[in-house]
Amino acid sequence: MAAARHSTLDFMLGATADCNAVLKALQPVFQEQGMTETVHNWEDHGYLATYIKKNGSFANLRIHPHGLVLVDLQSYNDHTKGREETDQLLNKVEERMKELFHGNLKRIKRLPAILRGGVIDRYWPTADGRLVEYDIDEVVYDEDSPFQNIKILHSKQFGNILILSGDVNLAESDLAYTRAIMGSGKEDYTGKEVLILGGGDGGILYEIVKLKPKMVTMIDQMVIDGCKKYMRKTCGDVLDNLKGECYQVLIEDCIPVLKRYAKEGRMFDYVINDLTAVPISTSPEEDSTWEFLRLILDLSMKVLKQDGKYFTQGNCINLTDALTLYEEQLSRLYCPVEFSKEIVCVPSYMELWVFYTIWKKQTEV
Amino acid sequence: MAAARHSTLDFMLGATADCNAVLKALQPVFQEQGMTETVHNWEDHGYLATYIKKNGSFANLRIHPHGLVLVDLQSYNDHTKGREETDQLLNKVEERMKELFHGNLKRIKRLPAILRGGVIDRYWPTADGRLVEYDIDEVVYDEDSPFQNIKILHSKQFGNILILSGDVNLAESDLAYTRAIMGSGKEDYTGKEVLILGGGDGGILYEIVKLKPKMVTMIDQMVIDGCKKYMRKTCGDVLDNLKGECYQVLIEDCIPVLKRYAKEGRMFDYVINDLTAVPISTSPEEDSTWEFLRLILDLSMKVLKQDGKYFTQGNCINLTDALTLYEEQLSRLYCPVEFSKEIVCVPSYMELWVFYTIWKKQTEV
Repeated sequence: MAAARHSTLDFMLGATADCNAVLKALQPVFQEQGMTETVHNWEDHGYLATYIKKNGSFANLRIHPHGLVLVDLQSYNDHTKGREETDQLLNKVEERMKELFHGNLKRIKRLPAILRGGVIDRYWPTADGRLVEYDIDEVVYDEDSPFQNIKILHSKQFGNILILSGDVNLAESDLAYTRAIMGSGKEDYTGKEVLILGGGDGGILYEIVKLKPKMVTMIDQMVIDGCKKYMRKTCGDVLDNLKGECYQVLIEDCIPVLKRYAKEGRMFDYVINDLTAVPISTSPEEDSTWEFLRLILDLSMKVLKQDGKYFTQGNCINLTDALTLYEEQLSRLYCPVEFSKEIVCVPSYMELWVFYTIWKKQTEV
Repeated sequence: MAAARHSTLDFMLGATADCNAVLKALQPVFQEQGMTETVHNWEDHGYLATYIKKNGSFANLRIHPHGLVLVDLQSYNDHTKGREETDQLLNKVEERMKELFHGNLKRIKRLPAILRGGVIDRYWPTADGRLVEYDIDEVVYDEDSPFQNIKILHSKQFGNILILSGDVNLAESDLAYTRAIMGSGKEDYTGKEVLILGGGDGGILYEIVKLKPKMVTMIDQMVIDGCKKYMRKTCGDVLDNLKGECYQVLIEDCIPVLKRYAKEGRMFDYVINDLTAVPISTSPEEDSTWEFLRLILDLSMKVLKQDGKYFTQGNCINLTDALTLYEEQLSRLYCPVEFSKEIVCVPSYMELWVFYTIWKKQTEV
């Protein structure tokens, strides 16, 4: 299916604009391309000129009287020739504007063209809502589980990227994430009992198994299938079998398992919660998400040894409200806890990420 | 000056589109907003409907018969109310489309809105040409030198970012860059003679001076003024004076200085070239850039001790052609050299970066 290519070119003028003069200067550029013009003239808000070409492409020229001129061009992305024509048209518009204002333009901005409706979706916004384009060149895996959409996309620089319901989760380049959620190399996992909640990409399991733990139990659902095939750089061969010498993977909902462990009095040296980031929303309707998060935390503390450690991701460093709310939850658990946090650069995230270490407050002797 | 907010909403249908049915279904959504419609109907390329509102905002509805429906909305970014209205309009369009296709839509994509013509420019494309939005919230410094435009912008997460002629150069978060171009912690700078070409942000100088070198000479122009004030986390106080116990900063063009050093027979243990990334273009008209690059390399080798090391940045890992061309240049120097490279994640770059270590080939004994 032919995708559309949306190009933009913006001019900030040094002063207010003579809208009519700008329109008159740029009209010929579009008309020379055989484009048909329709002009709308607002009383106080300047002009919108629309230019339509026979081949299905069109342009908008929006002239704001306060000194902003915005050009948009939508065309098919099929062939190189079309892309060249677009670039040439925008070049001509830029030349004309420079002539008209004798170079007295405060800013000229041409963004990389946006591909809309392509088979490969390259746009995966950050947790703090910024627009970023990835160098995705292949859809490797795309399946719906009862819980979420699971995508694995190939990035030229980051390798395969796991995307869960639209959120970039982990790329093969992201050992920094796995390292951080394991305690940044400061922990000794030898002979330890470890519980991983989530972690379906296998990264944490793969790294911990190398460190000779006594037993690692990982509880996840559905994500494993794609990852064991397409995230090999992250998980190695650790997901090929659900049981190894020092690990087991339970394909289950983690809540009932945690409840059972708590009832049985099973205790772990480390609990690593890789289930989900801190909820972004701080609105009341998200109460249930925070309830769920606190339930997991409470149950995890119940199965954590007195001197054990709980590791988890927080969220993007910019989401200060959500992080503060998370830290408030920590004071509302059944037992008193303390925590520290670390800021880590995870390559494929394009934003700095906060990780938490939480431990039970030691009672004074 | 009021910026424009450009919102998009795209639908990929499961099959070809009945363009007229889509138009009829969505028309009321725009008309309820008091928007005036103009429709263009291509013979083979579907519809473009333009909707104009009295307050200066407008929308495009582009219906492609092969099954792609694109909605664009441009409005002023002044007030929260306007932003809410836009979001509500797009929500209604999305609802209608879901009703019309009974949820049978292959993809619904709403990108974060693009701010156009704002005082603060948040869009700084990567070296490999991808669109990325930064969390810029302040213009800290903006000056033109005879050589380039020098901007320092504040990012919420990365701290101040130095942007030279539109290229993200270094942020206060980017110690990873400085570490990499100093040899990733594997070198012993104690008592050594070091030459830095460029490095006007002061990061390399600041870090090396801590390591007790014999003498560091840095040659840069113009960038220092802004950095010594606004990149303090990077340069500390090292740029406050152009001369210290073990360093000197020369505000000069580095070519004549290098030529003089070569003539005088001055030799360095380390030469660190922080002048510029490998040129992106591999076209013939860029020959002079490559000539310049080879001249710097040749002169640097002339002032490098036989067992010395030359460090430099390459470029984004995705620009394989440019990097290959750079490596070819290395075989055309006046003396035979060998090199190694390392791939590093620099937080503010949003792409993986290649660094080179180059040394003179040791003659067999």
